[in-house]
Amino acid sequence: MTSQAQVRTGKGEGETVGVALLGFGTVGAEVYRLLGENSEAFTHRIGGPAEIRGIAVHNKNKQRPGVPAELLTDDAKSLVLRDDIDLVVEVIGGIDYPRELVLTALNAGKSVVTANKALVAAHADELAEAAENSAVDLYFEAAVAAAIPVVGMLRRSLAGDQIQRISGIVNGTTNFILDAMESTGASYEDALAEATRLGYAEADPTADVEGHDAASKAAIMASLGFHTRVKFEDVHCEGISTITADDIEAAQEAGYSIKLLAICEHLVNEETGEESVNARVHPTLVPQEHPLASVNKSFNAIFVEAEAAGELMFYGNGAGGNPTASAVLGDLVGASRNIIHGGRAPGENAYANLPLADFGDVRTCFHINMEVADRTGVLAAISNVFADHDVSLRTVRQEDGESTARLIVVTHSAQERVLDAIVTKLGELDDVKAVNSVIRLGA
Amino acid sequence: MTSQAQVRTGKGEGETVGVALLGFGTVGAEVYRLLGENSEAFTHRIGGPAEIRGIAVHNKNKQRPGVPAELLTDDAKSLVLRDDIDLVVEVIGGIDYPRELVLTALNAGKSVVTANKALVAAHADELAEAAENSAVDLYFEAAVAAAIPVVGMLRRSLAGDQIQRISGIVNGTTNFILDAMESTGASYEDALAEATRLGYAEADPTADVEGHDAASKAAIMASLGFHTRVKFEDVHCEGISTITADDIEAAQEAGYSIKLLAICEHLVNEETGEESVNARVHPTLVPQEHPLASVNKSFNAIFVEAEAAGELMFYGNGAGGNPTASAVLGDLVGASRNIIHGGRAPGENAYANLPLADFGDVRTCFHINMEVADRTGVLAAISNVFADHDVSLRTVRQEDGESTARLIVVTHSAQERVLDAIVTKLGELDDVKAVNSVIRLGA
Repeated sequence: MTSQAQVRTGKGEGETVGVALLGFGTVGAEVYRLLGENSEAFTHRIGGPAEIRGIAVHNKNKQRPGVPAELLTDDAKSLVLRDDIDLVVEVIGGIDYPRELVLTALNAGKSVVTANKALVAAHADELAEAAENSAVDLYFEAAVAAAIPVVGMLRRSLAGDQIQRISGIVNGTTNFILDAMESTGASYEDALAEATRLGYAEADPTADVEGHDAASKAAIMASLGFHTRVKFEDVHCEGISTITADDIEAAQEAGYSIKLLAICEHLVNEETGEESVNARVHPTLVPQEHPLASVNKSFNAIFVEAEAAGELMFYGNGAGGNPTASAVLGDLVGASRNIIHGGRAPGENAYANLPLADFGDVRTCFHINMEVADRTGVLAAISNVFADHDVSLRTVRQEDGESTARLIVVTHSAQERVLDAIVTKLGELDDVKAVNSVIRLGA
Repeated sequence: MTSQAQVRTGKGEGETVGVALLGFGTVGAEVYRLLGENSEAFTHRIGGPAEIRGIAVHNKNKQRPGVPAELLTDDAKSLVLRDDIDLVVEVIGGIDYPRELVLTALNAGKSVVTANKALVAAHADELAEAAENSAVDLYFEAAVAAAIPVVGMLRRSLAGDQIQRISGIVNGTTNFILDAMESTGASYEDALAEATRLGYAEADPTADVEGHDAASKAAIMASLGFHTRVKFEDVHCEGISTITADDIEAAQEAGYSIKLLAICEHLVNEETGEESVNARVHPTLVPQEHPLASVNKSFNAIFVEAEAAGELMFYGNGAGGNPTASAVLGDLVGASRNIIHGGRAPGENAYANLPLADFGDVRTCFHINMEVADRTGVLAAISNVFADHDVSLRTVRQEDGESTARLIVVTHSAQERVLDAIVTKLGELDDVKAVNSVIRLGA
């Protein structure tokens, strides 16, 4: 699946790289400011000046202090196609409109730096192909966890290793909410309200709390880590909106923190040797002694297990204008160097082309919180359901209530499809009043 | 200081990259094994096969199971110069001999991957120049903290940011010893003996325990982070052999862990605006709530503060055959891609060329542990010494002993030269029986 690389000649040392900036929100404004303030440093690091020659905005008449009016345009497409533009920086957001602009740029032989996780997670294949056909670069470090260099690590640093598993806290909003619930005992609703008040959650928090944002990042990490095209829609995704204060408390008592993890796994069937990949996002019980458990507030962290490197963890601010601008500007230096000196970024390489595992086949341990009748024989009946499905139990904890008891069961590793069958069966037992929650163990 | 980049044409997609492996110790053997076992993955990731065509060893008659005898040679220089060698991987160690071989390779137009921190810390300038003159690459990710991608992060990911400070636990042996002292109360001697027994310390532990190994890494990190040539001999270096169980206990009581940190700082004089850089290695009191404080056993972690990215931390195994091989192989993929496709690695770029700060000018807070006479007026006399030097105190803690008292003083930020003067003065006071230890605060 490696394609014919075209020869690319650099503009030459000292030449100027013409940059088009698409979007001037928080990130775009920071990119503009930092590039201006540190222009001499950028010139040295690139081998020639990088000059922003146009900024595409929705409303070009809006006042933007410190930005010359003649740089602003509302015609992004014409800007991208201008002869004096070598590099396009896309920080608009959304999918369809930036996709069109990025493809236009790549097809016109301009390298692209994007911070757009949704775009990359949905259309990495056609973007990579367009970059390859034009022998230009597509960089997207900022698409995953801002300045935490996850993309660079997977694409370059670990390029000589075999990655087995990636598990990351890649959404700051949900980590803030879960951390607040854990440290204050707040309900999900109250913690979300506090996150909104403090600006950690958007007015419509759906993309964050339902795990969609994390799923885009999981798709990107799995694609890079396993050299296999994994798209947003391939990621099994569950958010945190069903997590209750009771779940958090039960987890704490059992020695766990609940984190929304993006998990990417390279699976090898023990019997057949068949390989597959899996990417998923769901609330996960992380043992309190695991490094990911102590990642609090809105911080992000990515934990990687590789054959030779062993365990690595990367930690930092995973969002925000400045950290995202740092990642965009790091990519801008890389792409600009290649424009000056020739050469190409490490390509999108999906050679392994592994099949996606059926989610029902994925194995995890489960923490099941039930309300059961408080009488003899209940535990036996429940244990039988697990035994009938060949799933063994790690721990069983029963707390007596008034008329009912709370029963918490942690299983050994079991397949998702088996667990589904078990939960259905448990629900049919007269003595099981409710299955309050089923949360996976991980990390 | 950017130099003329030469045009470099790739060998072309599908061509084989001929590799010479210099050294076949733990790392070399792992590089050989992993490259062989995953050869198909490497071919895809590079764009053509990477083939080890010769291995330079000290004794070519020694049995090396699984290695064809015809690959072995004891004439490293001839191997490096062979026409069928494109890339040289140096994992010998030492300085003078590998320096000669690496320079020979670079001057002959071969790219080099090295894991040799001592070599890079001593001779980065001439190696970078040789690489530049031949338009080939010099990669050295494995020289700092093995598979933790510190070099890639500083060279590439943060290339668009301004790094302010790097503080890292970059030596596993000393971290193992300090962690053992902290968790068991053992003396330095006993903890070192245990580290030696378990293979964490070498028979001659000098390079580790005196901080020389960490100082090489500090030099490399400061050079990359501040775009300024910092050599091993520029690094102020103090080891851990003087740390006592008493120091560890006093630190714990005050809420600190003692860690051997490599600290690289970009300093800006508040009055003149003059910039300078400083790199140093010394035992450091790290607040227990700081992420570096919980890095235990032989793990490494590097904490970076940058203008836009904010705080980042990278954590993992910083040593060992496998993690080091992972870093070497990541570099091998990068260097080989450039051999196939053309293009160059991000160069060694020392354009900023900042002066080194005089160590006496460097400011830190100090934790001073004294044995003093147990009588009135002592505290006043001691306080006066600090006041006379314009240094204010953060905390003072006195514990009465039998005839003497232990006095622990933590200062606010003060210059090294001022602290030196204070310690001299304190030693001259009749009532100060001994200055037991002076340890800097940091991280």
